[in-house]
Amino acid sequence: MAKIGVLIDDMFEDVEYISPVKAFEKNGYKIIHIGLKEGKTVKGKKKGTLVKIDKSAQNVSVNDLDALLIPGGCSPDHLRGYNEPVKFVIDYFNSDKPLFAICHAPQILITAQLIEGRRITGWRSIIQDIKNAGAEFVDQAVVEDDNIISSRGPQDIPLFINACLKRLESL
Amino acid sequence: MAKIGVLIDDMFEDVEYISPVKAFEKNGYKIIHIGLKEGKTVKGKKKGTLVKIDKSAQNVSVNDLDALLIPGGCSPDHLRGYNEPVKFVIDYFNSDKPLFAICHAPQILITAQLIEGRRITGWRSIIQDIKNAGAEFVDQAVVEDDNIISSRGPQDIPLFINACLKRLESL
Repeated sequence: MAKIGVLIDDMFEDVEYISPVKAFEKNGYKIIHIGLKEGKTVKGKKKGTLVKIDKSAQNVSVNDLDALLIPGGCSPDHLRGYNEPVKFVIDYFNSDKPLFAICHAPQILITAQLIEGRRITGWRSIIQDIKNAGAEFVDQAVVEDDNIISSRGPQDIPLFINACLKRLESL
Repeated sequence: MAKIGVLIDDMFEDVEYISPVKAFEKNGYKIIHIGLKEGKTVKGKKKGTLVKIDKSAQNVSVNDLDALLIPGGCSPDHLRGYNEPVKFVIDYFNSDKPLFAICHAPQILITAQLIEGRRITGWRSIIQDIKNAGAEFVDQAVVEDDNIISSRGPQDIPLFINACLKRLESL
C-alpha cells in the first residue's frame, strides 16, 4: 500500500487537505501527516478541520513515502519559517518522487530553492514570487513538470485529484 | 495634521496594527484605513481586532496621505491578490513619501515590483522571496532605505514605532 505524506501546519486551506486526502484514502493509500511537531493538532483556516501530526519533519524518512501532498492556505508559509520542514522538502524533492503542490504550496519550494527553471502554477498572490524564483508560472488548472504536479487553488481540486491519482497509479 | 494611511485586510497581525496606530494617534496623526472595500470590517488574525475600512484602494488619492503603514500577518498576501491595492502601492511608492512596512508587508511590494536594489527586512519566512525580488535582506530590527522603513515582526515593534515617529516629525 503506497504511503502519501501530507506536509501541513495550522491555517491550512481545509478543502485542499480534505478532498485530496479523502480521494487518496478511498483508493487505498495510507496518509502520513508531517509537520512541525509529532502529536500536535493543527487546525484549518476556514472550517477549523483538525489534523494530528503523525511525524515531525525531522523524524520522517523520505524512504517511507511514495508521494507528498502540500496543501495551501497559510500552512506553507508557516512551515517555511523553520529549517526542518524546508530541509525535509529538499530531501524529498531530490528523491524524484511525486510532489503534489496546490495554492500556496510553492512558497516552501521557493524557500527551499527548488523551482528554478521549472513549470509550475499556484495561487494568484504568489505569481511574482514564482517568477522571481526563476520558474515559469503557468496559468492553468493542472501543471505537470516531471515530479511536480501543481494546481492554482480550490477551483482546481477535482482536476488536481485526477492528476494525482493517475500519477499514483503509475508508480 | 499629517494623515497616515494603513493598508489592511483580514487576518492582519493584530499587534502590528494596534501598537503603531496607537502611537501615531497619541502623537496627533490622523489614520485612514485603506482596503479592498469601503465600509468593510476586517478582522485581526490572533486577537480578532476589528478595523473598518475608510477608503477602498482605488478611491484613495496619494495626495491625501503623508505616510503609509502596511501591517503584516496574512493581510499583505490577501491584498496582493487584487489589482487595486497593488496599483495603489505603486502610485504611493512613486510619490517618495514614507512607507512603513513590517513583517509580511514586503510581499505586496514584491508583487508591485518595487524593491529591486533596495535594502529591506521582513518576516523570516519571506527572506528568499525578498532576495529573489532583487533586494538585499537585512536581518536587523529596523532598516531604513530612503522612503522605506521596515522591521521583521512583532519583536521589533518598539524600535519600528520610534523610527516611524522620527520620520513623521521630519516631514
